[in-house]
Amino acid sequence: MNIKNHQVRLAARPVGMPKASDWSYVEEPVREPREGEVLIKVLYLSLDPAMRGWMNDRKSYIPPVPVGDVMRALGLGQVIASKNPKFAVGDYVSGMPGAQEYVLSDGGGFFKIDPSLAPLPVYLSALGMPGMTAYFGLLETGQVKADDTVVVSAAAGAVGSVVGQIAKIKECRVVGIAGGEEKCRYLTDELGFDAAIDYKKEAVGQALRKSCPRGIDVYFDNVGGDILDAVLEQINLGARIVICGAISQYNNNGPLKGPSNYLSLLVNRATMKGMIILDYLPRYPEGMREIAGWIRAGRLKSREHIVDGLEKFPETLLMLFTGDNFGKLEIRVAKESGS
Amino acid sequence: MNIKNHQVRLAARPVGMPKASDWSYVEEPVREPREGEVLIKVLYLSLDPAMRGWMNDRKSYIPPVPVGDVMRALGLGQVIASKNPKFAVGDYVSGMPGAQEYVLSDGGGFFKIDPSLAPLPVYLSALGMPGMTAYFGLLETGQVKADDTVVVSAAAGAVGSVVGQIAKIKECRVVGIAGGEEKCRYLTDELGFDAAIDYKKEAVGQALRKSCPRGIDVYFDNVGGDILDAVLEQINLGARIVICGAISQYNNNGPLKGPSNYLSLLVNRATMKGMIILDYLPRYPEGMREIAGWIRAGRLKSREHIVDGLEKFPETLLMLFTGDNFGKLEIRVAKESGS
Repeated sequence: MNIKNHQVRLAARPVGMPKASDWSYVEEPVREPREGEVLIKVLYLSLDPAMRGWMNDRKSYIPPVPVGDVMRALGLGQVIASKNPKFAVGDYVSGMPGAQEYVLSDGGGFFKIDPSLAPLPVYLSALGMPGMTAYFGLLETGQVKADDTVVVSAAAGAVGSVVGQIAKIKECRVVGIAGGEEKCRYLTDELGFDAAIDYKKEAVGQALRKSCPRGIDVYFDNVGGDILDAVLEQINLGARIVICGAISQYNNNGPLKGPSNYLSLLVNRATMKGMIILDYLPRYPEGMREIAGWIRAGRLKSREHIVDGLEKFPETLLMLFTGDNFGKLEIRVAKESGS
Repeated sequence: MNIKNHQVRLAARPVGMPKASDWSYVEEPVREPREGEVLIKVLYLSLDPAMRGWMNDRKSYIPPVPVGDVMRALGLGQVIASKNPKFAVGDYVSGMPGAQEYVLSDGGGFFKIDPSLAPLPVYLSALGMPGMTAYFGLLETGQVKADDTVVVSAAAGAVGSVVGQIAKIKECRVVGIAGGEEKCRYLTDELGFDAAIDYKKEAVGQALRKSCPRGIDVYFDNVGGDILDAVLEQINLGARIVICGAISQYNNNGPLKGPSNYLSLLVNRATMKGMIILDYLPRYPEGMREIAGWIRAGRLKSREHIVDGLEKFPETLLMLFTGDNFGKLEIRVAKESGS
């Protein structure tokens, strides 16, 4: 075995927006798998807003990435050597390989995926963590029901676009908030949202009033900040706010902006509830089955934004915070064999 | 009928803390009750933090008090004339008489109370709206269960003191936050709280860490502001935060302080939920029966802070915001007959 592994390691804890010097790009040899281990060649990595949180030295739902370690990342790849009876050479697997070209694993957290059912990148998008987050967040945490008015932020993103499409399937009125005309057009023209609000151009509060004439029953929040406050002003009795993320606040150096209008929860007997997709890991098969069915039936679309090359990791990650990606952001680390 | 009625009317919408000129004190004659009406002599008025919200010109769970109108107020009194078959002269009734000495009513919203079961002021306290708020807020919205660590703010207040006592009855660890040594001593020595934090003297975050070694499962919030943020930092997985009020913010002229640490809801899959006691009106008998039982059994104490004279209404109301009352704040408008 004479393989070189390239890795993106966390070199320093970022203050605010991560910069080049917070990362190191390292080469090291790959050793043979030991008994029980499997060697996976990474094909695609998932770039997710949650990564920013993992880089902070702060108690959270999983421990921070230690400085010096390979950056934690979801991804998928192909088994190229195996001393683990559960995996055979050639198997495609999804899991948490980290930001590197090869990963040696005891197989924990990796599961097989079938590339004949959907293109590989979809397994990190609508059929992956973002799709599952949308599915369980909207249906379980959000308790959505027919005729609800559902608002979702970062609506053209990996999670938001699936949230909106599932809400349409569940017969809701769906309003998406996204940045830029092109994304907004995509939501209404391609994904069937009832309305889209361009937060870069429109006053969100006013636009919500127009597009949600019966108020807001469910808000799926990926952004926090002023948009959360604008929504809180217009929620209905018994509304449910799913706190999935707060990307507008992740690179804040100062104190985070809390929702000034949170007392609207009181007036409206409404609920604000956080969700972490890890809690639903045992129910992934259910979510994947249902979303795959909708994709097959042409009722749900997945869109990916793919950047080539592991070495592009640092600057690619920033696209999530500037909103420059359009679709699930992924890095293609290597081409699929035969393609 | 030659009775003069004195009334406290809202003269102007207050900016920040209500001042003398926001009120007028008016005298007008009382007319005879018409068919179906009942004339009630008001004995006690309830002074509640919610009143501050009713004075703002803002959509809320009930309409604002119109400028010029008698100030809305809960209270109780005695029927002195009746053309309503449901009420007899001499009946004691509780309801929403407004800040005045006499009220003519069709009986709507008034219900009879039995002064032989508890002193009248208790019917505006543990057996009234504050007690019901504590009961349904903690048990329904807060979903409290044995061994939970429960934190309550404004803990020596009308709602908070009952919240803490019910939580003790339900076998929780109970920590109260209150202002001043005397109130804190009252919580631990008289009401059986496990710990009390004097927010005027102690750093609340640090004190919580000491008194909640197993984290916080339920927070019953009456105050908002920095204390809410301090609690959010220490909640457990699946914690429930009951938003009952935010007295620290009610007289804010600027934007309200939202909870900067609200993303702790996400990390901990926790819930923040608002409650309005009006929703539980149909279940008052259940709550009153249970609390009356606990009072009789000596397991729950009610404490009232009574100020004499309707004309004291404006300055008495301010005590709620300075924390100068100790117990449920009430105004005795008139003495009970025979006493």
